[in-house]
Amino acid sequence: MDMARSPRLAKGMDSSAAHYTASVFFDWRLLPYDVAGSIAHITMLAEQHIVSAENRDQIIAGLEQVRQEWESGTLTPRLEWEDVHMNVEGRLGELIGPASGVLHTARSRNDQVAVDMHLYMMDVAELLKSRLLDYMRALVERAEVDMDVIIPGYTHMQAAQPILLSHHWLAYRGMAVRDFERLEQWQTRANCSPLGAGALSGTPYPTDPARTAALLGLAGVYENSVDAVSDRDFLMEFLAWAAIAMVHLSRLAEELVLWSSVEFGYVRISDAYSTGSSIMPQKRNPDVAELTRGKAGRVIGRLQGLLTTMKGLPLAYDSDMQEDKEGVFDVVDTMDAVLTVVPGMLRTLEVNRGRIARRIGQDYTAATDLADLLVQDGMTFREAHHLVGMVVTELENQGKGFAEADVEWLKQVAPAIRPEWMALLTPENLVAKRLQPMATAPVRVAEQIAAARTWLAEHDGGPPR
Amino acid sequence: MDMARSPRLAKGMDSSAAHYTASVFFDWRLLPYDVAGSIAHITMLAEQHIVSAENRDQIIAGLEQVRQEWESGTLTPRLEWEDVHMNVEGRLGELIGPASGVLHTARSRNDQVAVDMHLYMMDVAELLKSRLLDYMRALVERAEVDMDVIIPGYTHMQAAQPILLSHHWLAYRGMAVRDFERLEQWQTRANCSPLGAGALSGTPYPTDPARTAALLGLAGVYENSVDAVSDRDFLMEFLAWAAIAMVHLSRLAEELVLWSSVEFGYVRISDAYSTGSSIMPQKRNPDVAELTRGKAGRVIGRLQGLLTTMKGLPLAYDSDMQEDKEGVFDVVDTMDAVLTVVPGMLRTLEVNRGRIARRIGQDYTAATDLADLLVQDGMTFREAHHLVGMVVTELENQGKGFAEADVEWLKQVAPAIRPEWMALLTPENLVAKRLQPMATAPVRVAEQIAAARTWLAEHDGGPPR
Amino acid sequence: MDMARSPRLAKGMDSSAAHYTASVFFDWRLLPYDVAGSIAHITMLAEQHIVSAENRDQIIAGLEQVRQEWESGTLTPRLEWEDVHMNVEGRLGELIGPASGVLHTARSRNDQVAVDMHLYMMDVAELLKSRLLDYMRALVERAEVDMDVIIPGYTHMQAAQPILLSHHWLAYRGMAVRDFERLEQWQTRANCSPLGAGALSGTPYPTDPARTAALLGLAGVYENSVDAVSDRDFLMEFLAWAAIAMVHLSRLAEELVLWSSVEFGYVRISDAYSTGSSIMPQKRNPDVAELTRGKAGRVIGRLQGLLTTMKGLPLAYDSDMQEDKEGVFDVVDTMDAVLTVVPGMLRTLEVNRGRIARRIGQDYTAATDLADLLVQDGMTFREAHHLVGMVVTELENQGKGFAEADVEWLKQVAPAIRPEWMALLTPENLVAKRLQPMATAPVRVAEQIAAARTWLAEHDGGPPR
Amino acid sequence: MDMARSPRLAKGMDSSAAHYTASVFFDWRLLPYDVAGSIAHITMLAEQHIVSAENRDQIIAGLEQVRQEWESGTLTPRLEWEDVHMNVEGRLGELIGPASGVLHTARSRNDQVAVDMHLYMMDVAELLKSRLLDYMRALVERAEVDMDVIIPGYTHMQAAQPILLSHHWLAYRGMAVRDFERLEQWQTRANCSPLGAGALSGTPYPTDPARTAALLGLAGVYENSVDAVSDRDFLMEFLAWAAIAMVHLSRLAEELVLWSSVEFGYVRISDAYSTGSSIMPQKRNPDVAELTRGKAGRVIGRLQGLLTTMKGLPLAYDSDMQEDKEGVFDVVDTMDAVLTVVPGMLRTLEVNRGRIARRIGQDYTAATDLADLLVQDGMTFREAHHLVGMVVTELENQGKGFAEADVEWLKQVAPAIRPEWMALLTPENLVAKRLQPMATAPVRVAEQIAAARTWLAEHDGGPPR
Repeated sequence: MDMARSPRLAKGMDSSAAHYTASVFFDWRLLPYDVAGSIAHITMLAEQHIVSAENRDQIIAGLEQVRQEWESGTLTPRLEWEDVHMNVEGRLGELIGPASGVLHTARSRNDQVAVDMHLYMMDVAELLKSRLLDYMRALVERAEVDMDVIIPGYTHMQAAQPILLSHHWLAYRGMAVRDFERLEQWQTRANCSPLGAGALSGTPYPTDPARTAALLGLAGVYENSVDAVSDRDFLMEFLAWAAIAMVHLSRLAEELVLWSSVEFGYVRISDAYSTGSSIMPQKRNPDVAELTRGKAGRVIGRLQGLLTTMKGLPLAYDSDMQEDKEGVFDVVDTMDAVLTVVPGMLRTLEVNRGRIARRIGQDYTAATDLADLLVQDGMTFREAHHLVGMVVTELENQGKGFAEADVEWLKQVAPAIRPEWMALLTPENLVAKRLQPMATAPVRVAEQIAAARTWLAEHDGGPPR
Repeated sequence: MDMARSPRLAKGMDSSAAHYTASVFFDWRLLPYDVAGSIAHITMLAEQHIVSAENRDQIIAGLEQVRQEWESGTLTPRLEWEDVHMNVEGRLGELIGPASGVLHTARSRNDQVAVDMHLYMMDVAELLKSRLLDYMRALVERAEVDMDVIIPGYTHMQAAQPILLSHHWLAYRGMAVRDFERLEQWQTRANCSPLGAGALSGTPYPTDPARTAALLGLAGVYENSVDAVSDRDFLMEFLAWAAIAMVHLSRLAEELVLWSSVEFGYVRISDAYSTGSSIMPQKRNPDVAELTRGKAGRVIGRLQGLLTTMKGLPLAYDSDMQEDKEGVFDVVDTMDAVLTVVPGMLRTLEVNRGRIARRIGQDYTAATDLADLLVQDGMTFREAHHLVGMVVTELENQGKGFAEADVEWLKQVAPAIRPEWMALLTPENLVAKRLQPMATAPVRVAEQIAAARTWLAEHDGGPPR
Repeated sequence: MDMARSPRLAKGMDSSAAHYTASVFFDWRLLPYDVAGSIAHITMLAEQHIVSAENRDQIIAGLEQVRQEWESGTLTPRLEWEDVHMNVEGRLGELIGPASGVLHTARSRNDQVAVDMHLYMMDVAELLKSRLLDYMRALVERAEVDMDVIIPGYTHMQAAQPILLSHHWLAYRGMAVRDFERLEQWQTRANCSPLGAGALSGTPYPTDPARTAALLGLAGVYENSVDAVSDRDFLMEFLAWAAIAMVHLSRLAEELVLWSSVEFGYVRISDAYSTGSSIMPQKRNPDVAELTRGKAGRVIGRLQGLLTTMKGLPLAYDSDMQEDKEGVFDVVDTMDAVLTVVPGMLRTLEVNRGRIARRIGQDYTAATDLADLLVQDGMTFREAHHLVGMVVTELENQGKGFAEADVEWLKQVAPAIRPEWMALLTPENLVAKRLQPMATAPVRVAEQIAAARTWLAEHDGGPPR
Repeated sequence: MDMARSPRLAKGMDSSAAHYTASVFFDWRLLPYDVAGSIAHITMLAEQHIVSAENRDQIIAGLEQVRQEWESGTLTPRLEWEDVHMNVEGRLGELIGPASGVLHTARSRNDQVAVDMHLYMMDVAELLKSRLLDYMRALVERAEVDMDVIIPGYTHMQAAQPILLSHHWLAYRGMAVRDFERLEQWQTRANCSPLGAGALSGTPYPTDPARTAALLGLAGVYENSVDAVSDRDFLMEFLAWAAIAMVHLSRLAEELVLWSSVEFGYVRISDAYSTGSSIMPQKRNPDVAELTRGKAGRVIGRLQGLLTTMKGLPLAYDSDMQEDKEGVFDVVDTMDAVLTVVPGMLRTLEVNRGRIARRIGQDYTAATDLADLLVQDGMTFREAHHLVGMVVTELENQGKGFAEADVEWLKQVAPAIRPEWMALLTPENLVAKRLQPMATAPVRVAEQIAAARTWLAEHDGGPPR
């Protein structure tokens, strides 16, 4: 039995075409949302006296059973019923008989699948907000733990100026705040019901779309029914959100891969988040970080996929739009997985304080400050930059750091540099002098942490489901 | 003279490498923003007593002259000065001598280029909001003008149900409202100054980043200096905004191409927005619409480009990020052009009322409503759907529309269908019955138009600069 | 038991990280290739006297059993064994005991997974070549069947000049020939074994990579072991192949959607490849064509995903590269499905000859030829183009085709046009005059078909598996 | 005067639309190809007696002058002539009068622009092959110079096994060989003339497309005229080629950035390919490498752009396809620039032999070989892997390399390990044992170099123009 087939399409579908067009094997996860949408719809139809109360009760009971069968795993998708909607309706028909047919009154699969996706994405939003908050908590915890660690801050992958490691972690927290804000704004925009649009024009029945929206906990209703069924902005925008968030996570992952290399040696990723090599016994591979970096490509590709699919489609609904689901589900699962595993990796990270301290003592990240001292003594910045550059080159050739510079030599080649400055150019002194609210002085970073804690307290909605 | 070169890099750059790394030929448009940033910076430095008032005045006067030379076109970019920042500084040096060197105090090119881009994008936001508003105005004007036109609404590019053409235009207005909202939220988020971050860690000078932000008219300051110089979210998010907006515009463009074909014949694109063929005298090519559809690919590709470039970059600044500009500038110009030309094309569109009326009279878009009448008579929707499908197949074979169906034949094959219904299945009646607030009944569409007018009045900030 | 874990990673992996890094749930399809690779490897090791013949025989017997268990569905993937390679080895260990450990001699998972993918892709190449050939056969069959149908050829979606429908089908055959050639060249390039590269540097054992390649039926061996394990060109290039092929198929799909609309009405997609609407009884939706068009986005996105993932990865192997599989497998399955369903849709297409004939009689696609006649009479092309354009505009206003033009009127407004020409401007005459080998004259199209048949006969390797 | 306008489009184009649709500001570089195409076309027309010899000579003389004006920079693009083709024709008209109109006989802008692009891309192919050869030469030169340097080979950015630095360079040469082969195959496929297809159907004139192809030096003619004008495979395939090539170059760039960091310190990028910091005197920024890495994103995005633009376009020509040019030109220029600058950067690279030697002496990249020795003594690989892993962990804790292991301690914890092995585990010994043809033993790498030199000698076509 194939209830979706019109008599106009009498010959029956080619088997490969039936597989090709069926979505039930990937939209199965929408079943509880589909049932919820149908219950809201039939409740409203009864309230509007479009269907009888008996019909409503019978259908709701049947739908609840379908949902239970799905939850318990006893219901399995049937290809001949093509998609999750027809599977629900087909099973309902088996359970309650022809009365199930009433459910299709004043509704089309076009608004039905759209409302299912909106409902699903609302749950996704809550889940991912929760995951993001945990990721931010992990970053702030690291910032708190690592307050006493000064690392070389890098630009162009070259050591540039000393910064607090905590300050570095908080940069990722800054990105995550934007990600959270974007996610919330997206959620608010997507919190909108298309149900009632029918195929595209509304329906001739006296339905009440605002009522179904309210029953479903959606905050509003689309203003235009053609838009309601043709819109996939809420999915494209979600994928764009995910792509940008993954760019952030891939940058963090890149740094963890770098920093856990023997050459940097700044951190040790816990065994719980590393794997060994099947052939090289000495290896500790930062798989979790690498995969996180790699998955950025996957998510960016999925965004491109949907944008390309939607480009140039005439209104209102086209079957091309069925291709939205696999990409979105894949990205939801990916973001869920990434944001589950990364906080744990961060929390269990061991920071190699000794190695970092030795490293920071040997480099020339104090050069800018030395130039600044010359400027304060009256030299122009350009001249100071030039002089310090020359001194660095010479010290590098000598294999010495600033602190080890020979005083006599220094007097000779750079008399403008006061030798006593050299002892002041410690990483601790350098960071302490950077006192802008956003800068790396410990007092400022502590304020950033406090602000982050306050923010978290305000946004924390408890653990993810 | 190459002031940006450190003495550490003494040998001089290879010529092809100098061209390769120079950005001045494409970042030249940033000059007024760079000058504005420098004026704010030197003003703040003087207020903080880091530079003298004399220095400040001299530098501001020089910078104003550089800007005037740029505006009048007498200033030309010099390769040996690499980027717009060095060109400004180099020219300033020519104008006021060594005093210009002071300008570099407590600032790095990393925070300088970032603030330039933020300032530029704020102007872009205002421009594009203004363009979007004009596009929305054109859609609403069309909705007002075309209120009496009923077209077949399409799903799967098959005529589905009659809708008001105005209703169709307003679907695009719904997309544009979301685009506008996204653009405003993006603008608010990007309205933030990185100036003061220095290379990445802040500066040892007692600068006041909030003051420079205020002088520049930016609403806030980054909370973290490492984030401030490594962040390109405001550009990635802008490109994602543009990509989604272009998906909308490409859908409209596709429909204009379709509708202006001989086969549809619904609209005639004005000569002002069409071209002829060099070889086929009968042709009228919808170039503007086609190019708009095609440019969606360009914009989507630019988004992909920046996401890929940023993916996996370690903090803080890397030269890869210099690749942000050409793509963003290209998309800004593209969006500006598209949103300038599309409203004109819409406003000058001729709607072929006669052709549409003939078309709507011959199709079967009333089929759903006929089925609904059967349902109201007590048949289940599934049965009604089946019966009407059979009738449509037969009428199609006979080459007749519903209104032309033979009454006796109808009584025989489908006695449940009351013959008097047939006359009621006019497009006018069908649309009038769809009374949900988002649906296509003229009364509802008129309300949608009124709401759109109110919205426009509230958001209208006057014409673009 | 987790054999892949090094003792260096003693604490055990976090559960979410274990799921995150495991690939066995998606690389399971590689099992027969993994077994084949291992059999070739152990065979060579025995030949080189690195392992004993007894060991070899025991291992081969065990591997054959693992493959049989996989084929019969009794083997199930185990998460704790992480990937397909460890699952094979783990099961082998259960079957034959510690002797299985020998299999890992002189091999690493890096060259093992690479050879598995190469072997898999060789089978993919054969499958997709076979599918492509069937698609080309379907196009040629259509070209043969539709030789008597003249359609308006379109540019800018505007009717331009009459062409044979067969000629149009053969344009898609031209694209498919390039797709086939690209696929074959890719296959030849990818037909290359990385086995023997070990982790990246080769192995200290006296292995014979050329021998394993020969045993596996691969045509050559990588020239450089670092390249061998870090290369994913054969996957990126495959995805690029698929993306371009999908652009072609999406163009065909777009035309089938257009042509099966009521407005065009050129073709009727068979019921076997259409679906009805759940709500609109009159609808026949070209789902298969729409999904094909939509899947182009999916495939393009997957290409972008892998390119982005691979971008900027240092040599040799990084775990990011594990992300290659899901995208490639998805595209393989998609191409297989698309190229299975499209030929059937083409073969069962009904061409509406009557509708097309009426359409072609009413348009102005003869305009170019009329201009050409004027040129042959001595007018410049530009003047002729101008004159004919004027005549078309007038006839359009009169609602007449060329054949219906009033002779007296014509003499008056365009005396240069000889009235007797009008009767010659039939579609049949127009196509017959286009006699370049690539042009649309029936004699030429027949030659194109004959050439296509010859090509097919030369390339046809029998039906797909 | 706007000759391209049909009289049907009388009102004149809107100014913004004229700018929007004009291509002359970016297709200007095609002028010499357009002139060449026109000369071939008029030559053939005269040979076929379609135009007179006088006309031909006049037109050719005029076209030569247009080309000279373009070359000397005295010709400037005019917006009112829209594209390069009309600019050539318009200027020709100014030079020789109405006779220029003859040039349009039996040709359309559709086949004209297509042949221009094919001709241009043939030159691009020669240029880029030449650039690729120089890049390969630079890699082979490095391989020759660095034969005595052993580096840690990396997997997962963790030191894995020692390899020759030359071996590493040759891995990039392997990628470049595939890039070269792909480029040549693409060139052969694209070496094909669409001229003669007219608008899409051929022309009623007795033209000889094979003759124009021969005059233009193109190897063949499209088999199908509809395909000829609608095909952009040769551009999509080129962009896919470039994207894959840029993935390779971005990987090399990533390694140069890493290796030139203080932490690695393996190489020093020449001052000729580095820049200093405007603020940090100690910095040497690997800009050229960073930009190369970043430009991979740009090129990948351009590929995405064209694929998306072409997706779903109906045949034959649509204006969307005009969007092909800017992306392709940008990628051509990018590839030209990247492949010009990278060889110089490679050739001037200083390898820090001392630093690398110290590094390789301290790591555990000999671990696999130690395990292999145990295996040769009869232990299973898995047991050996386990034992060596334990020893590495302990030595790491003791801060010792293999060579420094205490013999007594070793006898106690790992009696199976023969102490005398330790001295044999030198990088030199380890690489020398890897004797597969693709492996890292110096004798093999020398053979790889010799083969590469032979290959270069066979393919070297002299310096780029």
